[in-house]
Amino acid sequence: MSRRPSVVIVGGGFGGLAAARALGNAPVHVVLIDRSNHHLFQPLLYQVATSVLNPGQIASPLRSILRRQQNTEVILADVTGIDKEGRRVFASNVDRGDVAIPYDYLVLATGAHHSYFGHEEFARFAPGLKTIADAVMIRNRILQAFERAEAEEDPNPNDGLLTFVLVGGGPTGVEMASAIAVLVRQTLRTEYRRIDPTTTRIVLVDSGGRVLSSFSPSLSEAAHKRLESLGVEIRSGHVDRIDEDGAWIGGDRIPSKTVIWTAGVAASPVGKWLAVETDKAGHVQVDGLLRVAGHSEVFVIGDAASYEQDGRMLPGVAQVAIQQGRHAAKTIVKSIAGAPPPPPFRYFDKGNMAVVGKGFAVLESGKFKLSGLPAWMAWAGIHIQFLAQPGLRVSVFLQWMWTFLTGQRGSRLIVNYLSSETGKSAGQS
Amino acid sequence: MSRRPSVVIVGGGFGGLAAARALGNAPVHVVLIDRSNHHLFQPLLYQVATSVLNPGQIASPLRSILRRQQNTEVILADVTGIDKEGRRVFASNVDRGDVAIPYDYLVLATGAHHSYFGHEEFARFAPGLKTIADAVMIRNRILQAFERAEAEEDPNPNDGLLTFVLVGGGPTGVEMASAIAVLVRQTLRTEYRRIDPTTTRIVLVDSGGRVLSSFSPSLSEAAHKRLESLGVEIRSGHVDRIDEDGAWIGGDRIPSKTVIWTAGVAASPVGKWLAVETDKAGHVQVDGLLRVAGHSEVFVIGDAASYEQDGRMLPGVAQVAIQQGRHAAKTIVKSIAGAPPPPPFRYFDKGNMAVVGKGFAVLESGKFKLSGLPAWMAWAGIHIQFLAQPGLRVSVFLQWMWTFLTGQRGSRLIVNYLSSETGKSAGQS
Repeated sequence: MSRRPSVVIVGGGFGGLAAARALGNAPVHVVLIDRSNHHLFQPLLYQVATSVLNPGQIASPLRSILRRQQNTEVILADVTGIDKEGRRVFASNVDRGDVAIPYDYLVLATGAHHSYFGHEEFARFAPGLKTIADAVMIRNRILQAFERAEAEEDPNPNDGLLTFVLVGGGPTGVEMASAIAVLVRQTLRTEYRRIDPTTTRIVLVDSGGRVLSSFSPSLSEAAHKRLESLGVEIRSGHVDRIDEDGAWIGGDRIPSKTVIWTAGVAASPVGKWLAVETDKAGHVQVDGLLRVAGHSEVFVIGDAASYEQDGRMLPGVAQVAIQQGRHAAKTIVKSIAGAPPPPPFRYFDKGNMAVVGKGFAVLESGKFKLSGLPAWMAWAGIHIQFLAQPGLRVSVFLQWMWTFLTGQRGSRLIVNYLSSETGKSAGQS
Repeated sequence: MSRRPSVVIVGGGFGGLAAARALGNAPVHVVLIDRSNHHLFQPLLYQVATSVLNPGQIASPLRSILRRQQNTEVILADVTGIDKEGRRVFASNVDRGDVAIPYDYLVLATGAHHSYFGHEEFARFAPGLKTIADAVMIRNRILQAFERAEAEEDPNPNDGLLTFVLVGGGPTGVEMASAIAVLVRQTLRTEYRRIDPTTTRIVLVDSGGRVLSSFSPSLSEAAHKRLESLGVEIRSGHVDRIDEDGAWIGGDRIPSKTVIWTAGVAASPVGKWLAVETDKAGHVQVDGLLRVAGHSEVFVIGDAASYEQDGRMLPGVAQVAIQQGRHAAKTIVKSIAGAPPPPPFRYFDKGNMAVVGKGFAVLESGKFKLSGLPAWMAWAGIHIQFLAQPGLRVSVFLQWMWTFLTGQRGSRLIVNYLSSETGKSAGQS
């Protein structure tokens, strides 16, 4: 019996998971490597950061998702490098140390992380939102700001405790800003005795001309109006500086103890691992079959790749990653069978949507445009359908109904994980 | 208008919250101080540690619970001391620094934390379970043990990676041990390719003669049998030593990378704050009205207090704390009205129960005893009923049904909160 070819997939996000699933019945051995044990439904991460959902409602263990796929193993490890010539991936985890995992085909689906455009010093004061840990830390910061304001002996309205600044007017910034607005106006309104949460200032900073610039101007306009009606201030301008007391936007100082970074993404270190050229943001150029030049066994997909279609680079969204993951799997299966490769990858754009507060979304698919409650219902339906596990669909649906009807959120906790990890015990509570 | 008397309550657990609620319509100003922003339903904490429930399902913000109670304010702060003569509580939080909060009546409901009986060096290797952060950290450790075992190049069955030791045969130890047994046999069984999770060794260490020693011998016996049928080893003996490679129990070494402390509780520093005598575990002696000797305006309730009834000290359970909280509130209301005090506190024991794995519990109320599935159904119903917020009742009920039917758990995530708190970004996901 000849050995089955080994397909190593790095990253269990939308792209890597789609590739692994598409190979479930193929005559290959699949190894999925991720540094975390769960697939994260990133489009809903802002709902964890704003206390609507629990982390467990938007993340499923990769092992659990793939448990019935007998040809697939999952390894929890950090990839540290790639030997293209020797066809090996280097990875490390606690016990194993550095190990080399051989491959016949390699699919790199490592996604992107947030980029501070060279201003790494912003990171400390303006965290970004990419992982469950990020979301929980931002949730802590938002909720703590109200607690600190409530506890102030001598309140100073200009100290920025109740000012939240979101840097970046894309979907994440818009969704966060509007979710914070709903949080203060609906959930927190009646819960404090010294401060009035509805006086909270929410500033959304967009360096370009308009929010949601990847949408049509008419939908950007609808989102803009909706944000304003929720009390969100929209500022355009460049961020010059961020420190613990606030942000400087186009020369103006905005006092704020809570600045959140929702701008810029940078691809992960795939380019460095492969020692190939990348664009400024770190994306690796791939051919029509999503392969790296000179290595027809190495695929880069999703946010880590740069792929032009009709003269435009494809956006870093889940649908691109999913379709590319399936396409790479198809190419691998054909290659093993000795069949000619599939036609070059073409992204089928199903559309684009973003939520702006309670019961309001904008949605665009081809020439079709929709905004308001019908768009929000479509958004909710589609997002629930795409959650990886059936149990989560029920759970998220019920949570949304509950929050919609009562204003109560699912997980409004401040948890200090540091004190526990460092072994101090907590007595009172 | 004369100033309303101020009642300061320290601790938002079962006792403190019951006192605050009982004072909702009283002519007083209530200040509830807690170091965390949520009331925690501790009896279900082990279900977070074993991945069944999300933290948000067993914890509700104190503000949210008390939002309609207009005479009550909530302060998130750490109590640092008490000035009995000047009737002030000292507390600190991030912004406020140390402040003094005056009181006319003081209710101390600060609970207990785990005690290592003088072996504080065990804490690093054998974490205890008292807070959400503890539960999430223990969840990480349990899940990581399987990941590390799966990743081993050269597996050594004696390295203790797949051995879990629970020190303490009370309800927490029994519930944790059986929950881990169900986790490995039902949820994880099919998900690994190199290790067999069902070979996991689970050791429950009980220093006394029998598990669940607060129950009748026949129920201890039923729990013992059930634990054995789930594959849990029960050891009696003293813990001599714990380090990163295992535990020494009665002279035997048990190799284990995951030791969890479910024994001993010690009261919080109330005795020190008040400068009064305590017993060895730190409990403060109170009179029939739950007051501290010489200070009829200071009450100590729940796990922080020591109260004898019919020659036995009351156990540290939620029902005692709740009934004492209500009793203290009643005494305060009568005192303000100039009425004679209520009769001395008497605990009405509604009963005692503990879960042993899936669909099995033991339950005892007076002379009534029950074990097996009917007891588990009673346990589930009663626990759901006592969750503080209606939204959580639905959510926990559905989660339990789902887990019961499918074996899938609600929140099986390994999350490294440290890397996020320290500002490192996570690229791959």
